Amino acid sequence: MTETTETAPGWLAPEELETVRGRMPILYVDAVPVRVDEAGVVTHIGLLLRIGSDGTISRALVSGRVLLYERVRDALVRHLEKDLGPVALPHVPVSPQPFTIAEYFPTPGVTPYHDPRQHAVSLAYIVPVAGDCRPRQDALDLIWFTPEEAASPQVQQEMTGGQGLLLKQALAHVGRLP
Amino acid sequence: MTETTETAPGWLAPEELETVRGRMPILYVDAVPVRVDEAGVVTHIGLLLRIGSDGTISRALVSGRVLLYERVRDALVRHLEKDLGPVALPHVPVSPQPFTIAEYFPTPGVTPYHDPRQHAVSLAYIVPVAGDCRPRQDALDLIWFTPEEAASPQVQQEMTGGQGLLLKQALAHVGRLP
Amino acid sequence: MTETTETAPGWLAPEELETVRGRMPILYVDAVPVRVDEAGVVTHIGLLLRIGSDGTISRALVSGRVLLYERVRDALVRHLEKDLGPVALPHVPVSPQPFTIAEYFPTPGVTPYHDPRQHAVSLAYIVPVAGDCRPRQDALDLIWFTPEEAASPQVQQEMTGGQGLLLKQALAHVGRLP
Amino acid sequence: MTETTETAPGWLAPEELETVRGRMPILYVDAVPVRVDEAGVVTHIGLLLRIGSDGTISRALVSGRVLLYERVRDALVRHLEKDLGPVALPHVPVSPQPFTIAEYFPTPGVTPYHDPRQHAVSLAYIVPVAGDCRPRQDALDLIWFTPEEAASPQVQQEMTGGQGLLLKQALAHVGRLP
Repeated sequence: MTETTETAPGWLAPEELETVRGRMPILYVDAVPVRVDEAGVVTHIGLLLRIGSDGTISRALVSGRVLLYERVRDALVRHLEKDLGPVALPHVPVSPQPFTIAEYFPTPGVTPYHDPRQHAVSLAYIVPVAGDCRPRQDALDLIWFTPEEAASPQVQQEMTGGQGLLLKQALAHVGRLP
Repeated sequence: MTETTETAPGWLAPEELETVRGRMPILYVDAVPVRVDEAGVVTHIGLLLRIGSDGTISRALVSGRVLLYERVRDALVRHLEKDLGPVALPHVPVSPQPFTIAEYFPTPGVTPYHDPRQHAVSLAYIVPVAGDCRPRQDALDLIWFTPEEAASPQVQQEMTGGQGLLLKQALAHVGRLP
Repeated sequence: MTETTETAPGWLAPEELETVRGRMPILYVDAVPVRVDEAGVVTHIGLLLRIGSDGTISRALVSGRVLLYERVRDALVRHLEKDLGPVALPHVPVSPQPFTIAEYFPTPGVTPYHDPRQHAVSLAYIVPVAGDCRPRQDALDLIWFTPEEAASPQVQQEMTGGQGLLLKQALAHVGRLP
Repeated sequence: MTETTETAPGWLAPEELETVRGRMPILYVDAVPVRVDEAGVVTHIGLLLRIGSDGTISRALVSGRVLLYERVRDALVRHLEKDLGPVALPHVPVSPQPFTIAEYFPTPGVTPYHDPRQHAVSLAYIVPVAGDCRPRQDALDLIWFTPEEAASPQVQQEMTGGQGLLLKQALAHVGRLP
């Protein structure tokens, strides 16, 4: 889960964010980008590729904070555009109901989700994208995986904080858990 | 809820259908066609216009049977194409989970749904359509209504068998019940 | 949406809460208490009765903040116990997926939900309660309404901030919208 | 998925059932019995134990047909009582929305679900049971498994027709997929 760097209404200076983090759960959205066929069957899942300062590879969902006075849908659109580029053509779900929520705790083991920085509660959505994805910011690339590949131990171990499990929950929700 | 007239694997001759109807609940799909804005907010709902032999106007959702050896998604695609034409570009939901089910009974009052011909259980889905809709078959036209119009008494009384209620449940699910 | 007054881990002093409110959306839960029959059909909805300092009557769902380091389920249990008493025997849903979310904005009209104090995002759940309800704190009473009564203009106009609509969405979700 | 043997309205003689099976998808319900803690967390999943005529062990969900003129909820109650006994105290879900559907095809591979006898479409529900379970009919026993055990290869390989996958989808839905 990365932070937005843009300056916008609702945006917080780093020291302000730190102040809030210690006081209240922070609201996030997680989006699972997918490719679908004509009948709506999920054929591929898109994962962002990041390379850490120590050279370690990690794969991640599209994720980020909901800002003050921002609708959840608008936060989804903003983070999708930030991570997938301006011509990804995401189909944001018609229902505000997330397929699940992920509760990230700074202490591992309270839930399957973990974020050392903060207590964050994320609303998770599956988002078909129809256009061309061009990752920006700190992501190197977006790679499309089949459901079988996405649920494989190899990909799962490259995901952190419980996002591998969240991905498997998304696959289960669309009937594509291997 | 109208019957398909095409001949296909799983298609039943009318007398066969009658035989089955008296023995078992019949599986249907109901689809609520919607237009959405860029953030996924439902702006309009599409209703089929039908004129009865006595001149009465009725409005209906896209609806029909699931055939033998047909996946539910394929039944959705088939009925959407049948009722909205070949270039409607429906976005069939990624999850097989219906937003609700509608249980149509031949006896009114058992549930809010009624079908004098049969006991039918329908899986109901909300389907964004991005393309051009050209109704075919027995529908005269497809009219787009705002959520406020669709939930109004005037439109509701032109819907039959409980489909007006099903439409309101769809509006509630997408957060657009007036 | 009322504030907890107890002192607990994660609890904030009023001035701290004010500090956070102006910086970030606040995470809430809304619970719709219901009575069900043996087949799971919702027969009644429980609404809290409150009388304002000016004598006005208002009716409300069970609602409140999620605290720092508190699971959403535990927040639900805490607010249900706070508002319905210790022997209400609530059946907290097995799935963390809310039936919808309600986005309360301080500016009316952005969404159907309004909270003059803050931008709050609430995860909404339907909770069957099997036991005896004894409202505590600032609620005078808990009254059980049939779905028809709960959706009636009379009850709807006694609910504030869009909770009447949230209640109708809950009725739609359980198939009991009149 | 076993057949009811009782004689009831909507019940079909075996030869009638055969007639219908070759003509139309058959409507089923699948129920995943669970034990929950006070906060609604699923702690155990109940699986029926069956021993085949050749001595093979298989484990199964509660499952069966929806009869003519029977509501889906009443079918759930009937099959739960049939398989878990009269004092299991199942909490049938308040919403008619299944957490997923399972499409069983006689040809393996069309979907992950397989039933050599028929094309069946099953509405799947998670059902907390609070009472004492005493399996009847052809089930030998009901065994409670933790989520980890239920998702283990050992238990999964004792489930047939794709019910192991359906169980994992249920675990994902309640946030308990290991």
